[in-house]
Amino acid sequence: MTNILIRSVDILTLDDAGTVLRDADLAVSDGRIAAVGRIPQDFRANEVVDGRGKVAAPGFFNAHTHAPMTLVRGWAEDLPLDRWFNERIWVAESALEEEDVRWGAYLAAAEMIRSGTVAFADHYFWMDHVAEVVQESGLKATLAWCVFGLGAEQEIGGTTLARTVEFVRRWQGAANGRIRTVLGPHSPYVCSPEFLAQVAQTAADLGVGCHIHAAESQAQVDASLARHGATPIGHLTRLGILDRPAIVAHAIYLGPGDMETLAEKRATVVQCPNCHMKLGMGTTRVPDLLAARVNVALGTDGTASNNNLDMLEEARLAALAQKHDRRDPEAMAGDLPLRLATQAGARAMGFAESGVIAPGRPADIVLWDCNRPHLRPRHNLAANLLHAARAGDVADVMVDGRWLLRGGELQTLDEERILWEAERRAFRMVGSELKQVRAYRL
Amino acid sequence: MTNILIRSVDILTLDDAGTVLRDADLAVSDGRIAAVGRIPQDFRANEVVDGRGKVAAPGFFNAHTHAPMTLVRGWAEDLPLDRWFNERIWVAESALEEEDVRWGAYLAAAEMIRSGTVAFADHYFWMDHVAEVVQESGLKATLAWCVFGLGAEQEIGGTTLARTVEFVRRWQGAANGRIRTVLGPHSPYVCSPEFLAQVAQTAADLGVGCHIHAAESQAQVDASLARHGATPIGHLTRLGILDRPAIVAHAIYLGPGDMETLAEKRATVVQCPNCHMKLGMGTTRVPDLLAARVNVALGTDGTASNNNLDMLEEARLAALAQKHDRRDPEAMAGDLPLRLATQAGARAMGFAESGVIAPGRPADIVLWDCNRPHLRPRHNLAANLLHAARAGDVADVMVDGRWLLRGGELQTLDEERILWEAERRAFRMVGSELKQVRAYRL
Repeated sequence: MTNILIRSVDILTLDDAGTVLRDADLAVSDGRIAAVGRIPQDFRANEVVDGRGKVAAPGFFNAHTHAPMTLVRGWAEDLPLDRWFNERIWVAESALEEEDVRWGAYLAAAEMIRSGTVAFADHYFWMDHVAEVVQESGLKATLAWCVFGLGAEQEIGGTTLARTVEFVRRWQGAANGRIRTVLGPHSPYVCSPEFLAQVAQTAADLGVGCHIHAAESQAQVDASLARHGATPIGHLTRLGILDRPAIVAHAIYLGPGDMETLAEKRATVVQCPNCHMKLGMGTTRVPDLLAARVNVALGTDGTASNNNLDMLEEARLAALAQKHDRRDPEAMAGDLPLRLATQAGARAMGFAESGVIAPGRPADIVLWDCNRPHLRPRHNLAANLLHAARAGDVADVMVDGRWLLRGGELQTLDEERILWEAERRAFRMVGSELKQVRAYRL
Repeated sequence: MTNILIRSVDILTLDDAGTVLRDADLAVSDGRIAAVGRIPQDFRANEVVDGRGKVAAPGFFNAHTHAPMTLVRGWAEDLPLDRWFNERIWVAESALEEEDVRWGAYLAAAEMIRSGTVAFADHYFWMDHVAEVVQESGLKATLAWCVFGLGAEQEIGGTTLARTVEFVRRWQGAANGRIRTVLGPHSPYVCSPEFLAQVAQTAADLGVGCHIHAAESQAQVDASLARHGATPIGHLTRLGILDRPAIVAHAIYLGPGDMETLAEKRATVVQCPNCHMKLGMGTTRVPDLLAARVNVALGTDGTASNNNLDMLEEARLAALAQKHDRRDPEAMAGDLPLRLATQAGARAMGFAESGVIAPGRPADIVLWDCNRPHLRPRHNLAANLLHAARAGDVADVMVDGRWLLRGGELQTLDEERILWEAERRAFRMVGSELKQVRAYRL
């Protein structure tokens, strides 16, 4: 049994009372938090960590991403959505080879660990490679193999629902429970009603949930109303998709009753504020969703639209977007954005015990190095983390009590090889080494 | 003469053509850039730097801040503007002692250097201390001693316009020209018309410009129209404030003709997007200002409203704010936000030669370490820097060819002492060690 004692650390517990401890001890035993603050006299540590000047906080749960898209980071800039997809993303993904997915996922895993993410909900293709990267990296993940329902010949990698079912059977609960799986129908605007109903039935048979995109634009809502006589959320509800635990990415444009339906069905809405702002999509109405008792988590979306996997930035933008849109500096106050980025995501992804630093909970912990000028003075640790820190301040990351990052060094991945191989494949995919920057004359 | 040769570095020049060089050399001689790309055979370097995996880019010019306010970082969260000021900022500043200004400025200087800022336009009190910190740190700055014009007994530190004139005379051109000074009337909503006219005349007599806040809310515009029969910009114009080079912070709410006036007077508008979003103030109409040929720079504002001095974040938010507000992903495209954060600020602050990497220009250069997963692949160096990097990726910073940060280590400041002393004073000011976080139950 591995016992780790972190001494003299500040702790942002994110428990119900919002407890913040200064200069406290934190004990980890066999993958779980054994004690916080007062450590039992008989606790025998194999490893003692000096926590002075650091803040321990729950790790981030990235509730919507397409990890392997790291390969197209910076390749689709400043474009309207249709050109972004048709001229860039589709071109790149047409050149995607199965092995690319693995290296894109490796690059994403390295970036996520370094920025304090402990788990991610992924939605992409050839997901066995992503699962293997999760297994090797030590991260947690909830994996969905994306299917359009257009027939194997039109799917990337020739995937069918049957093959994604095999994927679920192969990986559910793997890596000591660090890997969970769900079904990944793309969206109500791509998938047919018949296919979605079939997915819903299959999810019920398998006892898993779904991860889907929905309600990203008013045009999608209008088309859904015209075609199906229901909003995208109403349409998904009718087809049974929300009868299983659902991760609904975006959900920006909601109609009357949609919030109540999402709450009743216990679905999770994932806001991706950086992507929404960068593509000019609008703002998920998070305060209203929370008031309606909907679980709201945060995600980065893929790096073709963000351009990073930085969950701290998403939490900050989740606060800024509402304060800005509502002209209300009191919106999304205190530690709320950090809770969306941690415990709400954990709940959505099937790791409901995580996202809090409390005895008995899984030891999914990040240590932030606050011996830095931008993190002093320490009047308010939550505000310092949310509004002043940056991902580069992450010093150590632990998942289920295992170090994935220690003193700024990755413990489970060969970073140098990943940087090289991922970039080599990325350049091959888009046939270029470096595109010229669009220059402005002031 | 100090000659530095940076070898095999990628260079984001931000020149008019938007030139990006891969794996190029960069020579610095006697504080200026001697050559870019092709280095003369007879160049003899005293120091050779390995630039592999790094990007050299112009350093940031923070065109509006209150550096010593680092002491109240995190002390005024999630409040409407009136309560933010009356219950927090004013309470803290009432407890401000002269020596606090020095330590707040030290903390700010350390943070700015570490985040790639080479110069800042400061607006605060007891500015001799800030000037001494600038001198010692090696940064560049354009300093304004804030005055309200209410009479010495009502000013922080008992300052009068006459004393700020002495400040200008004492410091203009000091530190080998790294220090510039301007007058700092607070705003048209605090200062009387008579006082502003007197400031304008004094600025003309001294041959300096002004740094002022204006047009932060519609209420200010309405009050100005009612009281003076002119918008804040129109009012400042009439009083002669814009007849000298002016730095106008915020300028969010502009009336008909204001943009044309600002352009004609060659004033600079400073957008502070993080502050504007966090306080729910609205958005400076940057694309319209640029179309009207107004110089637009970026600033962080003070850390009571931001909460950091991170200019990369301001550049990113400058892009996101317009894309979001206009629902237009093509807004603020390419490297434009980086140009506002560098050369536009340099121009505003009286360092017009800076902000570009080109032969003959001052060597105000930042090296970004891109050997990191979130900065690969390198499809687009400007997009990687603007949308994926973070301030923590800054490895080296040079001002006038002198290293202020080298391999992640501050070269001119005693960081450990600054962190300790600044925090001690900050706790004294607000009478507390740590305020409880406002906690939410999801």
